[in-house]
Amino acid sequence: MHYTLEQISKRLGATLEGAGEKLISGVGALDSATEEQISFADDQRFLPRIEQGAVGAVIVGEEFPAVAGKNLLRVPQPRLSFIHAVEMFLLSPPLTGISSAATVDESAVLASDITIDAGVVISAGAVIGSGCTVQSGAYIGPNVILGKQCHIGVNVALLDDTVVGDRVTVHAGTVIGGDGFGFVWAEDHHHKVPQIGRVVIEGDVEVGCNSCIDRATLGVTRIRRGTKIDNLVHIGHNNDIGEDVIITGQVGFSGSVTVGNRTMFGGQSGVADHVTIGEDVMVGGATAVFSNVAAGESVFGFPARPTAKAKREMVAMGRLPDLLKQLRRQEREMSQLRSRIEDLEKRAGKV
Amino acid sequence: MHYTLEQISKRLGATLEGAGEKLISGVGALDSATEEQISFADDQRFLPRIEQGAVGAVIVGEEFPAVAGKNLLRVPQPRLSFIHAVEMFLLSPPLTGISSAATVDESAVLASDITIDAGVVISAGAVIGSGCTVQSGAYIGPNVILGKQCHIGVNVALLDDTVVGDRVTVHAGTVIGGDGFGFVWAEDHHHKVPQIGRVVIEGDVEVGCNSCIDRATLGVTRIRRGTKIDNLVHIGHNNDIGEDVIITGQVGFSGSVTVGNRTMFGGQSGVADHVTIGEDVMVGGATAVFSNVAAGESVFGFPARPTAKAKREMVAMGRLPDLLKQLRRQEREMSQLRSRIEDLEKRAGKV
Amino acid sequence: MHYTLEQISKRLGATLEGAGEKLISGVGALDSATEEQISFADDQRFLPRIEQGAVGAVIVGEEFPAVAGKNLLRVPQPRLSFIHAVEMFLLSPPLTGISSAATVDESAVLASDITIDAGVVISAGAVIGSGCTVQSGAYIGPNVILGKQCHIGVNVALLDDTVVGDRVTVHAGTVIGGDGFGFVWAEDHHHKVPQIGRVVIEGDVEVGCNSCIDRATLGVTRIRRGTKIDNLVHIGHNNDIGEDVIITGQVGFSGSVTVGNRTMFGGQSGVADHVTIGEDVMVGGATAVFSNVAAGESVFGFPARPTAKAKREMVAMGRLPDLLKQLRRQEREMSQLRSRIEDLEKRAGKV
Repeated sequence: MHYTLEQISKRLGATLEGAGEKLISGVGALDSATEEQISFADDQRFLPRIEQGAVGAVIVGEEFPAVAGKNLLRVPQPRLSFIHAVEMFLLSPPLTGISSAATVDESAVLASDITIDAGVVISAGAVIGSGCTVQSGAYIGPNVILGKQCHIGVNVALLDDTVVGDRVTVHAGTVIGGDGFGFVWAEDHHHKVPQIGRVVIEGDVEVGCNSCIDRATLGVTRIRRGTKIDNLVHIGHNNDIGEDVIITGQVGFSGSVTVGNRTMFGGQSGVADHVTIGEDVMVGGATAVFSNVAAGESVFGFPARPTAKAKREMVAMGRLPDLLKQLRRQEREMSQLRSRIEDLEKRAGKV
Repeated sequence: MHYTLEQISKRLGATLEGAGEKLISGVGALDSATEEQISFADDQRFLPRIEQGAVGAVIVGEEFPAVAGKNLLRVPQPRLSFIHAVEMFLLSPPLTGISSAATVDESAVLASDITIDAGVVISAGAVIGSGCTVQSGAYIGPNVILGKQCHIGVNVALLDDTVVGDRVTVHAGTVIGGDGFGFVWAEDHHHKVPQIGRVVIEGDVEVGCNSCIDRATLGVTRIRRGTKIDNLVHIGHNNDIGEDVIITGQVGFSGSVTVGNRTMFGGQSGVADHVTIGEDVMVGGATAVFSNVAAGESVFGFPARPTAKAKREMVAMGRLPDLLKQLRRQEREMSQLRSRIEDLEKRAGKV
Repeated sequence: MHYTLEQISKRLGATLEGAGEKLISGVGALDSATEEQISFADDQRFLPRIEQGAVGAVIVGEEFPAVAGKNLLRVPQPRLSFIHAVEMFLLSPPLTGISSAATVDESAVLASDITIDAGVVISAGAVIGSGCTVQSGAYIGPNVILGKQCHIGVNVALLDDTVVGDRVTVHAGTVIGGDGFGFVWAEDHHHKVPQIGRVVIEGDVEVGCNSCIDRATLGVTRIRRGTKIDNLVHIGHNNDIGEDVIITGQVGFSGSVTVGNRTMFGGQSGVADHVTIGEDVMVGGATAVFSNVAAGESVFGFPARPTAKAKREMVAMGRLPDLLKQLRRQEREMSQLRSRIEDLEKRAGKV
């Protein structure tokens, strides 16, 4: 697949500085791109790499300096335009139908334009929408509903009654619809609370590898439209995760957590059960949230507190050993002052 | 499946207030239950939801107020009785035998009343007890022994020589019997310590999704009777986890950890190697345990320390920036007092 | 399989004290080893266990005391020699060829001396080197290259274009080559940054169970020679992990992290994106690394700081509540001194 720079420039709505007829055959990183590849730079500090590298053309911002002998495509948002350029070169693999090494229950309803790979199991009552790909070893449980153009990765398990919207990607090894974790201690042992709810994943959601989203005890665990979830994330029963939320690697949510739209979670952060987090919140990396967070706040640390406060406290903590010394010095100093006062008092008494 | 309220009331040993002949067809959450469903309330703050909702009957405590027009079943422990009510409506799926799409070694010994789903692999020398279900894509390794009425989820791996007791549930994607993590540095590289022990899971244990329990280096990694483990939990080699322990999501244990009965671990907590934790300990969420904890204690924080102490320190830490200011103020104050004393001393000298 | 003690002693280059003709049939832990088994002791505190146990022979250091009636093999490094002894008794399972229940694309290139178990899928263009074992349910994606003598565990996913060196072990459930986590917010939703790089795993690497190593956005995510990775570890896109690095359970690396040779990570530690960590660094358990760490350093805590400093601060923090009390007491004391000075000043004024 080749495009001329002019074709690419048009597609991106860019202003081209350079040779419109030049052929581009793919994309690459600024450091390693060849003369036939296009790359991008969203900061002037990458200028030397452009000058020294072989890269065939570079997508840059409107204020970026000209580079002698290099083809530039100027756009308002270089990173976003680069995404669009990459998409021009990405081949969607063709849909290949149902592998003879898949096991499909006869009561399942499958669109005709899909890919079902070897080793896939599709259970009774499942529905697979148009344009879906289900990769090797994935399991589609009883009564699972998959919308259109979903991508279900290798060895994924979508357990019974899970509902998945359109254009959802679930990466390899992830389990959706596992039992929520609930037990009641009585009569000298743990009684399992039956987990009879389900999981609903709305459209345009992406879930990384080896993550877990548990079904609700009763009702629904919901991941709303456009939310993106990374690897090894744990989402407990009855969570309600808002739209366009960003959840990075190894984040964990206990049960019945509510998260507002566009909130972002740094890696390895965690949220205790029944906590409500508002919209547009920033939760820092490795931060432990034990209580509600209002919309728009930024929180950080163990336990989570407003980021500015947490950082002040951390700086202060670094001075704590010195502070202890200072306090001891003051103690001594004060005792000296006390003796000097006593001395003065005695002498004053004499007067 | 339908039961009259009188049938349900009898089964639960409840005191019925309402229409005994009323038919109930299932269970639901208080907010969404229909007229044909039963729910529960273990706190009076749910009273308005009962009054406003359609719910057909509610399991409540003995002190709960009467609700006009609503059927109540009074019991000592509403949540526990609700579990029993849910169980009345849960259909165990029928056992379906061995799928033709499973691969079973001829030397494996299988009870006759079991379910082995498509894509399952059962290795040489494995033993599967009566009433077991092994779901799609699960792997039962060489010489693995499964007790009675176990449930092995989708894509679970029970690696060689693992022993599993009766009524054990292992949820999707979990790996039991992976190699312990042990290396010796010598001759300029890491030498792997062979991991030739195994894992023993006692009866009534439940393990969540995508968790890992490693085999012992030598001897046994043991999970004792009745312990419940959540998703994405890591249990290292040679751990000895007591009975009825609760281990929530993303908890991690290094090697050779010992945990007493009924101890509970909050989400994302962790335990360093060779640490011993007593019975009935509470380990808080995201808490890092680096040293032994005595029976009955509650610990919290990084590093783990007695919870009351940790909370006092966290409150104090919040005052640390102010404290630094106060200390500086005292410093200034003290210097002023010092000058005033010097001044007095001079004047006293003159006297 | 049996060896005489003399045979074992020769193989280990040990000095034998005892009966060279004695037959040993296996290895065991000091506490449970039988008369036919060999064990090891690298510390004199294990002496009573040797005296009281049945163990047939013990590998010990050169300074270890003699034990009446027990066979000892003296070596410079008992633990390392024990590893070699265990290896004498470990049978490599024979290679068994390609299972008829595997699915192998006709364009894949497979060495003749390999094991491909039931349920394995090998995709177009994949290459499997000599002596490799691919266990049940594993997935080898398009154009994946596996070197010689690799061991790919149950339900592992090696996604497209992944390159794996010689003698690499990947344990059950791990996913290598999942998409990196990258999105750009524009036009009111998250745009996925296409992840078109790949993963390269160099020789002698071991990866535990249910871990995730993401492909690069562009270019390569690289794990260098001899590095050992435990269970449930997350390694983000474009990481460059050095040689002989130790990464224990549940550690997480964000994107574009660089780690030097021989650096070690304690359990549940994490590293923020674009951070560079030098060679021979020790990162403590549950430690959160937000900024670069120089070679040879030891860091600990939240946030990571030099271990000695972090420990001093933690000790100081334990004294913080007392310190607050002390400060209040000083405040009162100072106010008393102030009045006494005022009093003196008044009297001095009178003079």
